[in-house]
Amino acid sequence: MALVVQKYGGSSVADAEAIKRVAKRIVETKRHGHNVVVVVSAMGDTTDDLLDLAAQVTAHAPEREMDMLLSAGERISMSLLAMAVNELGETALSFTGQQAGVHTDDHFGKAAIVSMMPERIARSINEGNVAIVAGFQGVNKRDDITTLGRGGSDTTAVALAASLRADVCEIYTDVDGLFTADPRIVPTARRIRTIDFESTLEMAAHGAKILHLRAVEFARRYRVPLHVRSSFSEKDGTWISNTTANPALQGIVPESALTHYCQEETVEGPVISGIAHDRSQDKLTLVGVPDKPGSAAHIFEIIAEAGANIDMIVQNVSTVQKGATDLTITMPHVDAKATLVALEAAQNEIGYAKIAHTGNVGKLSLIGAGMRTNPGVSAKLFGALSAAGINIDMISTSEIRLSVLVSLDQLDDAVRAVHTAFGLDSSEVEAVVYGGTGR
Amino acid sequence: MALVVQKYGGSSVADAEAIKRVAKRIVETKRHGHNVVVVVSAMGDTTDDLLDLAAQVTAHAPEREMDMLLSAGERISMSLLAMAVNELGETALSFTGQQAGVHTDDHFGKAAIVSMMPERIARSINEGNVAIVAGFQGVNKRDDITTLGRGGSDTTAVALAASLRADVCEIYTDVDGLFTADPRIVPTARRIRTIDFESTLEMAAHGAKILHLRAVEFARRYRVPLHVRSSFSEKDGTWISNTTANPALQGIVPESALTHYCQEETVEGPVISGIAHDRSQDKLTLVGVPDKPGSAAHIFEIIAEAGANIDMIVQNVSTVQKGATDLTITMPHVDAKATLVALEAAQNEIGYAKIAHTGNVGKLSLIGAGMRTNPGVSAKLFGALSAAGINIDMISTSEIRLSVLVSLDQLDDAVRAVHTAFGLDSSEVEAVVYGGTGR
Repeated sequence: MALVVQKYGGSSVADAEAIKRVAKRIVETKRHGHNVVVVVSAMGDTTDDLLDLAAQVTAHAPEREMDMLLSAGERISMSLLAMAVNELGETALSFTGQQAGVHTDDHFGKAAIVSMMPERIARSINEGNVAIVAGFQGVNKRDDITTLGRGGSDTTAVALAASLRADVCEIYTDVDGLFTADPRIVPTARRIRTIDFESTLEMAAHGAKILHLRAVEFARRYRVPLHVRSSFSEKDGTWISNTTANPALQGIVPESALTHYCQEETVEGPVISGIAHDRSQDKLTLVGVPDKPGSAAHIFEIIAEAGANIDMIVQNVSTVQKGATDLTITMPHVDAKATLVALEAAQNEIGYAKIAHTGNVGKLSLIGAGMRTNPGVSAKLFGALSAAGINIDMISTSEIRLSVLVSLDQLDDAVRAVHTAFGLDSSEVEAVVYGGTGR
Repeated sequence: MALVVQKYGGSSVADAEAIKRVAKRIVETKRHGHNVVVVVSAMGDTTDDLLDLAAQVTAHAPEREMDMLLSAGERISMSLLAMAVNELGETALSFTGQQAGVHTDDHFGKAAIVSMMPERIARSINEGNVAIVAGFQGVNKRDDITTLGRGGSDTTAVALAASLRADVCEIYTDVDGLFTADPRIVPTARRIRTIDFESTLEMAAHGAKILHLRAVEFARRYRVPLHVRSSFSEKDGTWISNTTANPALQGIVPESALTHYCQEETVEGPVISGIAHDRSQDKLTLVGVPDKPGSAAHIFEIIAEAGANIDMIVQNVSTVQKGATDLTITMPHVDAKATLVALEAAQNEIGYAKIAHTGNVGKLSLIGAGMRTNPGVSAKLFGALSAAGINIDMISTSEIRLSVLVSLDQLDDAVRAVHTAFGLDSSEVEAVVYGGTGR
């Protein structure tokens, strides 16, 4: 008997039929002898509908009221889901973020969890109930309702799993797990059966949209094994964990996955997990930055003040000005405008010659453990891109990632070429994308 | 400066436009120098939509989950309303039933308020905010969400007004106040400008649908002056109070209403407030009940066990059986079937000859203070009905009410005839019914 936390996103509970299907799965897990805690997002379009209503009323909604409004969404989905589970003969009780003990800071709209006190949830499952908890929401120390922002429901699920010492946190979504590349671009992409937290973090940070970075970081810190899978099929998904198999997971994890996982742990050499891609970055290049101490520091101060999250940085000897350097950075498209304005205002101060802004650029990231110690990996990557006639604009690396910037219109070709070159293609199409994303 | 509690029903906040209109009224009241606490119901169709979703999931929704589901409705309306008030430049904060300190018993779906602890609301208005509170909902001592059932939002408003010692509780609805009769039946019905609690209770109990009995009882017990008015017009509505004018109300109550009220208080003789009617009652007649001690008590025990709320009772010497009586009772249509079954099962025990059941019957109630001591009132009533060719089936009276049962198809004519006979007709049509009812 294990304690299983299951998280269902908005597309998994989009309507009454979907809710009944989810209820069936919950009841099956319960009847396999496990304790079940469920975290649920708002139904399909609820959040958009509520945002739309707010926009009709005001263009400047106070954040506290916006959180109060949005938190209604999970009340609806969680109580309906509890009803559906009861209809199938198991007792289910639904709990708000507050009732589940999700205590957050005061940042409405993007609150961070400061403590978890899930005593009511623990008591409820010990009494034999299925506990259904609102994702995405908590309460601050003034008893005001807060929401956790993007990836909030995943974060709720992982935080609950960590604080309840659950054996696994299952993240149900509308795809069958993590894939070696986006199946919409690479139809032969393979499902990743097992992957470590660090590689998952790199995948999430560099464009894979299945899991939110924040939830993965939380799971890594508290060592919560994640199982990402589809709520539309019975298939096993992707297991994310750094430990070898947990005995409590016998019966939850299919035998094949356990074996596979242990094997992979012992393989020498680089283990390529997959390829992430990202179309949401912009590129800014400062040409002719004086090559003197403090120049770079000053520039990054200005960028930080503009609130931009820098992704890649490359500095080179300037092609246009002697004794100067060219500095290229990438950042999310949404941050680029404000950064550009701030840097232009400081042109005299910094003393650069000119600034160039390229709208959305394409970034391909190859992710896998042991990459740094295997020079063959980068050679193979560059070779594949060159053979496909794709020019590399910029390169950045980490221990377990190798990212290149290419032109946006060549990005899909680049992903496919690299996927094939690293032998990631499956002999059959196994990915099914079911459409829709929750929060 | 006064403390004003305003309650807006579902039809007053049916969409974004309606919400903005309500916000404007709130801001106007605030800018007249008053403190404002607002109680709001769920938007127009929200409750029906949620019930519909639940019905798609299960036919046996647990009551706790149903309350969790329905309580989402007010979160949406109250946060949107707070946004709309903020948009107009006043600070508004929305509060759930729990945050407003509405503590109830454990009866999900029809919880009773056990205590009010509105400290947060008091603090918030003292800080200069408009406080917007979810109607219809509270929290039990286990921190589970409860709903107050029919008339719940009115009850929340009156309970808040009582506990905050508000100067007036304004009940906004879709008609201009209480009328001397239902304006859909009597187009010349006049708006009642002032009325006492007892007469209002009789109006509500005997078919007038504007106010819920429960809220009026609460207001009467805690002496909260009510002002029932339309959210669609600026007109003064109906003032309900037993006290003479409260000095704090100067500036809220128009001068004319204060004067009018004080005059009416001193008038001698019967003050006919209006005519209520009811189509929802059934009639049961037990023919030939043995005229012996304990017979009636036994019958009423059986009816009580069947869960029926008896309205009228008439006992006569039996027309068919010597030494026996005929007993006629009326009760809500929804209770009649179960009562009939219970009484039929006990026929031998009770020893009555036969039982007759008449489906919905029409009841007309004339309501006004000082009626009992004015024999002319009943003579005028019976005369008017007789002149209109309407047969009276049954009569019951209280200190301030005189009810008659007539056949359903003659009820409208009866209401019009009595309305005219008592000089209640207005020279002009002043009632506008805007349609829709909240909860």
